[in-house]
Amino acid sequence: MKSYLRQGERIDDLQCRGYYIIQNPAEFCFGMDAVLLADFATGKKGGRVIDLGTGTGVIPMLMEGREKGAHFVGLEIQEASAERAARSVEMNGLAGKIDIVRGDIREISVELTPVGTEGISSENFPDNHFRMKHPLYPQADYSGVIKKGSFDCVTSNPPYIKGGRGLENADSPKNIARHETLVTLEEVVAAASYLLVSGGSFAMVHKPFRLAEIIRTLSRYRLEPKRMCLVQPYIDKEPNMVLIEAVKDGGVQLSCEPTLVVYNKDGSYTEDLLHRYGEYR
Amino acid sequence: MKSYLRQGERIDDLQCRGYYIIQNPAEFCFGMDAVLLADFATGKKGGRVIDLGTGTGVIPMLMEGREKGAHFVGLEIQEASAERAARSVEMNGLAGKIDIVRGDIREISVELTPVGTEGISSENFPDNHFRMKHPLYPQADYSGVIKKGSFDCVTSNPPYIKGGRGLENADSPKNIARHETLVTLEEVVAAASYLLVSGGSFAMVHKPFRLAEIIRTLSRYRLEPKRMCLVQPYIDKEPNMVLIEAVKDGGVQLSCEPTLVVYNKDGSYTEDLLHRYGEYR
Repeated sequence: MKSYLRQGERIDDLQCRGYYIIQNPAEFCFGMDAVLLADFATGKKGGRVIDLGTGTGVIPMLMEGREKGAHFVGLEIQEASAERAARSVEMNGLAGKIDIVRGDIREISVELTPVGTEGISSENFPDNHFRMKHPLYPQADYSGVIKKGSFDCVTSNPPYIKGGRGLENADSPKNIARHETLVTLEEVVAAASYLLVSGGSFAMVHKPFRLAEIIRTLSRYRLEPKRMCLVQPYIDKEPNMVLIEAVKDGGVQLSCEPTLVVYNKDGSYTEDLLHRYGEYR
Repeated sequence: MKSYLRQGERIDDLQCRGYYIIQNPAEFCFGMDAVLLADFATGKKGGRVIDLGTGTGVIPMLMEGREKGAHFVGLEIQEASAERAARSVEMNGLAGKIDIVRGDIREISVELTPVGTEGISSENFPDNHFRMKHPLYPQADYSGVIKKGSFDCVTSNPPYIKGGRGLENADSPKNIARHETLVTLEEVVAAASYLLVSGGSFAMVHKPFRLAEIIRTLSRYRLEPKRMCLVQPYIDKEPNMVLIEAVKDGGVQLSCEPTLVVYNKDGSYTEDLLHRYGEYR
């Protein structure tokens, strides 16, 4: 497998169907949030799934491994990340099932504007082509990969922290992954709504302190929250993640799942966490 | 104490400052939700607090016992419940601190209309008087007890279930407490916003399946969710209550507290639950 690796990179075992993933620890490595999102997202067997801001490509790879879709797209704006994710996909022989595409979520989100409390009107959706490129084969035609209403499921592990444009090294891969320098919550939600078929689902992991804003933003883009799960490190510690899934044009009823506790008091992983990591599959 | 009791009633120990409460089990008894709300609500030391739909009056009594306000109003529409709550208050010598008032939340809520995504405009708030009566002293003048922007804290344990007007015995005390026959979520929220001073807090207990709707409704009435706590019966069971506190004109940042688990696996109460019930005070 050595030929897939560049300097500074390492290969990690995804413990899922024998898949391996290439990461560069100096830039960004996926976290527990991505693994939990891949487990939480319903996906759609036989359906089309897109991950917005895919980074290493870990979410489509885990969801493919768990048969939560037939075809996956991982959209990533950063050239080095996209190129690395594409190599991971090829290395695992998944090139036919997962397309890693380099492009900008904001190109999709600008197609939509929320209309007051009425939500958006689908009449305004233009059928558009985006400047999407395959990072390994830039000459290939990927303009048709991303079309309005063409996905059954959208996933995203977006940057959590507001602002960040004034940060030192604002354009470093870690800051781009963590701060809303290149894309905001609203832009991710708008893009998800644009891409989803009516009845399709959008699954996201985010920070609980932004939950009220998340629910309002989803609603403004016709995405009704249907499932939610808080994640807290210990039984007596505040939740530090929220998993939420919304359905486009869904009815108003939210299913709150039991809060996931990550660690037992002795610091070992809980059974619930191990289940979600696939330990008992 | 027997002179305070009517047929079918009983007296329960609130385990708080030696307070006792009168209940009629054939009509409605307060539940864990009310006790947890009284514990969760921040209140305001020295402030004015109103409980919307107070039933037995348990929430103002517990909050008074924990010094979460200087003066309390318990508003109740049902004549028998209001009269009983007023007797409980007198029996505990709290008549100077807690006013039980008979009146309709909807009379307050109709004063407010949300204005699109802009929220409501305080310019539209009329200074109004409501037809509020003391259940024991109907001749007394209570018209000035409830005024716009005159409370530091509002609490409510409202009916959870939508509709119910078509139910058999829709007007029974139990159905009125559980179903939105006499008041809806939006009417409770509108009344809370009307009554609160800017910066005041509204604490509510409700069902998690309505959380998205709750957050949207609070926001439309300038009440920004600031604290939230899910309550689940067991570590591996879905939450069946949500405690939420919003601040009028508050900034956008929600603090999610650790999920409260009520029972240990052996069916005994958890330490967290016992703390909130005041066992360790």
